[in-house]
Amino acid sequence: MINNEVEKIRLALLIEYNGKNLVGWQKQNNGKSVQEEIEQVAKILFKIDCPVQGAGRTDAGVNALGQVAHIDIPKVNRFANKSNVYIMTAFNSLLIKTEIRIISIQNVSFEFNARFSAIKRTYKYKLLLRSAFPIKLNENFWHLRQKLNINNMKKASKFLIGKHDFTSFRSRSCQALTPVKTIDKIDFDMESKKNILTLKIEAKSFLHNQVRIIVGTLVSVGRGKIKVDKVKEILDSKDRTKAGPTAPPDGLYLEKIIY
Amino acid sequence: MINNEVEKIRLALLIEYNGKNLVGWQKQNNGKSVQEEIEQVAKILFKIDCPVQGAGRTDAGVNALGQVAHIDIPKVNRFANKSNVYIMTAFNSLLIKTEIRIISIQNVSFEFNARFSAIKRTYKYKLLLRSAFPIKLNENFWHLRQKLNINNMKKASKFLIGKHDFTSFRSRSCQALTPVKTIDKIDFDMESKKNILTLKIEAKSFLHNQVRIIVGTLVSVGRGKIKVDKVKEILDSKDRTKAGPTAPPDGLYLEKIIY
Repeated sequence: MINNEVEKIRLALLIEYNGKNLVGWQKQNNGKSVQEEIEQVAKILFKIDCPVQGAGRTDAGVNALGQVAHIDIPKVNRFANKSNVYIMTAFNSLLIKTEIRIISIQNVSFEFNARFSAIKRTYKYKLLLRSAFPIKLNENFWHLRQKLNINNMKKASKFLIGKHDFTSFRSRSCQALTPVKTIDKIDFDMESKKNILTLKIEAKSFLHNQVRIIVGTLVSVGRGKIKVDKVKEILDSKDRTKAGPTAPPDGLYLEKIIY
Repeated sequence: MINNEVEKIRLALLIEYNGKNLVGWQKQNNGKSVQEEIEQVAKILFKIDCPVQGAGRTDAGVNALGQVAHIDIPKVNRFANKSNVYIMTAFNSLLIKTEIRIISIQNVSFEFNARFSAIKRTYKYKLLLRSAFPIKLNENFWHLRQKLNINNMKKASKFLIGKHDFTSFRSRSCQALTPVKTIDKIDFDMESKKNILTLKIEAKSFLHNQVRIIVGTLVSVGRGKIKVDKVKEILDSKDRTKAGPTAPPDGLYLEKIIY
């Protein structure tokens, strides 16, 4: 195989995307994925397959401000003396019609793995709390017409901080070996003038749909449908049916990966 | 005329829009304007012409987060016992395919005039300073590939604060009776992580293109093309050709009108 005959270098890509018209990070046969779009561009640039591995496998409709991926590219003559900004611009020129942008490129060693080297992942979830529905100008949100009791949401969120069995807060199709995860932080930021509530959630790693089920449950608390103390019971019950609904993907942004 | 026969009430509308595909606030025969879109919807709802007057006549491509307009609507039976939120939702339902939203409606007296009662207008101008071009997710920006010397821009902006003859900073087609205006404030906010620089400019009112020429000139200072002290000379020269270029409309947002 030609892949094994050429000398390669490993690059880390910092990537942002608007998830609205994407089937998610991972290659699938039902639409455009971030991984496949980037691999197609890499093949045009480098003439051989350059598999891309991402740090977080975001679902369909989920956005990213700071996804990280690694890619092994061959040392080809036409890019030999070029800067990473030059390579980035080559990628972005071919990505122009997508809503995917590579915003930074760094050389990394082959020890670096975008997925397994990550020590922390930060997601944020944006809610628009007002009567009028959003326009594109306002980015992607979960749009709710009513006010929420944010104090109660904050109180309820405390039960979820720390190391717990999150069976109640994982998708039934989650394939993680263990439901035990550690949530480091859940922060709330209400921009009253804009009626935008942003939740920021940090952990080393997450279960499938964990952030969205946490947000869905806390919104049910904010609406008064679930009592604050009930969230502790839900966690202890290890029963997905007890928690709130999975929040829609629109409001979710993969914000930052720390290595 | 039927317009004069019916009893009317005056409403103040708070409006946001993405200017990208609009010819601006004012009705024109070369495309969709905010004024015309809202008047068309009002005619569908109230069956008669309801002229709309805006506080700021934003140009083609300029955005608004808080445009204000007033409209006189007839007291018709189907809206007689309805709340303003109900009327707003009726408007927005018919505006759904546009990127215009009415985000609040208030009853005002006939003394209130959206344009002439305003005592302060705030515009903000957003620049994206990075190599990769923006995606829709990032809203509307003036995209510049290089870094700017923001300290020099701040120093230069001080010359423009206060009451001055702004002939050098008005469009040649500006029809204002006097070029004398008072700029209350020019604030800078650099979000380093996102590479977004936002300028916020406040005044009772502005000349045509005044904000965009101020931003264009300050960006020339940031690029080192115009020296800091030169901005004082430009102001004193009362000569539009001495100032920097008119910044593109994309980055400009009408943020707030105070009454």
